[in-house]
Amino acid sequence: MPRADGSRFDVVGIGNALVDVISHADDSFIERQALTKGSMTLVDTDRALHLYRALGSAVEMSGGSAANTVSGVASFGGLGAYVGKVSSDELGEVFGHDLHAVGVHFAPGAHLDEIPTGRCIIVVTPDAQRTMNTYLGVSSYLCPDDVDEAVVAEGRVLYMEGYLFDRDDAKEAFRHAARIAHRAGRQVSLTLSDSFCVDRHRDDFRALVEDEVDVLFANEDELCSLYETENFEAAVASVRRDSALAVVTRGPLGAAIVTRDGIVPIAAEPVDHVLDTTGAGDLFAAGFLYGITNGRSLSEAGRLGAIAASEVISHVGPRPLVELRSLDPRS
Amino acid sequence: MPRADGSRFDVVGIGNALVDVISHADDSFIERQALTKGSMTLVDTDRALHLYRALGSAVEMSGGSAANTVSGVASFGGLGAYVGKVSSDELGEVFGHDLHAVGVHFAPGAHLDEIPTGRCIIVVTPDAQRTMNTYLGVSSYLCPDDVDEAVVAEGRVLYMEGYLFDRDDAKEAFRHAARIAHRAGRQVSLTLSDSFCVDRHRDDFRALVEDEVDVLFANEDELCSLYETENFEAAVASVRRDSALAVVTRGPLGAAIVTRDGIVPIAAEPVDHVLDTTGAGDLFAAGFLYGITNGRSLSEAGRLGAIAASEVISHVGPRPLVELRSLDPRS
Repeated sequence: MPRADGSRFDVVGIGNALVDVISHADDSFIERQALTKGSMTLVDTDRALHLYRALGSAVEMSGGSAANTVSGVASFGGLGAYVGKVSSDELGEVFGHDLHAVGVHFAPGAHLDEIPTGRCIIVVTPDAQRTMNTYLGVSSYLCPDDVDEAVVAEGRVLYMEGYLFDRDDAKEAFRHAARIAHRAGRQVSLTLSDSFCVDRHRDDFRALVEDEVDVLFANEDELCSLYETENFEAAVASVRRDSALAVVTRGPLGAAIVTRDGIVPIAAEPVDHVLDTTGAGDLFAAGFLYGITNGRSLSEAGRLGAIAASEVISHVGPRPLVELRSLDPRS
Repeated sequence: MPRADGSRFDVVGIGNALVDVISHADDSFIERQALTKGSMTLVDTDRALHLYRALGSAVEMSGGSAANTVSGVASFGGLGAYVGKVSSDELGEVFGHDLHAVGVHFAPGAHLDEIPTGRCIIVVTPDAQRTMNTYLGVSSYLCPDDVDEAVVAEGRVLYMEGYLFDRDDAKEAFRHAARIAHRAGRQVSLTLSDSFCVDRHRDDFRALVEDEVDVLFANEDELCSLYETENFEAAVASVRRDSALAVVTRGPLGAAIVTRDGIVPIAAEPVDHVLDTTGAGDLFAAGFLYGITNGRSLSEAGRLGAIAASEVISHVGPRPLVELRSLDPRS
């Protein structure tokens, strides 16, 4: 049932629909395979197969940055929808199941069955860092026609994942979705996803942030990369000019919510033992977006982000294991 | 390279090759879905789909009782091989990968691609009990021709999983494998797997135990079911007559190793927090089999079983997360 503002969803996510293949390895594996620790690298089928063969026992779990975020929103009790492309293979089924299981509306776009569902090979090192190698598969074939206009128009905030920017059709799908959202009076948010991804597509990201983005999510590296500066203060000044609101995550230092009026600092939640940082940024965004679409102040929304991030880094896997609503200080 | 006794493997497992789909739920889910807590139930495609849809977010991990056991043997540093049937779909790939990743030789039998790889939907309740619903898929089509005779003849102990008994071809494959092993001077072991499975096939199990089994693995319920008695002492007396060696697991009470000369009691290893009992029996068998094929005494082998079982119940999933050799008191 539509709400007073005509919306059916709090957050509509668009991203690469991926199943994560998670394995533990030590730093010598990272070296031997010439991986860049902590980053996301795109790999082709051959390289994905090679890495998978070299990998120890693995666990498969649904992932995908924006999908993790809308799952987190749903776990707080919010209403989420997701736009992303899977194949009709077994991993595609797993991906759809895990969204439906938490009550997220899934708009998968047109079928394209000759290409398999995308997967992300994640190597977790003993320091809890994750190194990602993504075989995009069908997920990167998202095109403007795959964007369900009704779903986007009915979401309070559109949330787009920068990882999708690696293909032109997907970039166009982003711009298309952003225009639909704005035409419906909705907010548009974007996460920069990865500093290497920003390097590859800096101009397009800059144009999108200036023209369409109301809320920008980034970590310090990504923000500095976007504005080609090593000075965090300078990057903050630039983002203030381009975007009404920016959420800059800072790992164990918490986060900074940058508005045109000032900065709201958010402390990190204490975590006994950090096991796997996969999904930390995705879940920070989940808490923050749930908060701002449900009447919370910026600092309360930031606190929910910190709470969600602390939950997801205390176990293996990119999605919450407990109902996040049970961790909401207001519940 | 063959060893002094001509063997290439310590343990050769034969069983249903399954990928586990693991999800947490409370007891009301068990009731609502009319499941029998703690048991393994065979389900058809429709029922499997229904349960999967009703299930919350899930994680996929390679499973299969005998496959968990040979993976455990490999984790202790032993040499394992596995005979079981998968399809050439994604779950089949996952299953093969996870065996290769721990160094187990996988002999998958002939391909039969129209039927998907089997899967086991496991519901873990807050009391750490697991309730299993198995869609056997292609795994149950194992037939005598799928048994790699060279592999069986080169394993010090053949280990067969009772779950496979639900199909006549597989029963015949068991008898065939047992005969090959005995002809090569090897030992034959069997796990009864589940008391309901024993109920369904009691006469066949009894005949196999009398004729072919040198080492029988069972828990108390399964052993009592095999001999149709509620008296554990009476069941022990019967198994002593039928089998040279029996390993009876007793949950938190540890285990009893029953020989013709007496009983060797094995204490359970202390566990801080039992999270998921999936794989407890499989891993007890792994430790015990690694022990007896590597020159350990019965009580030392039993201790390795208890150690492996305690590791696997302290986390979610049916296979060890640490190298079991690091927990071996002799290492």
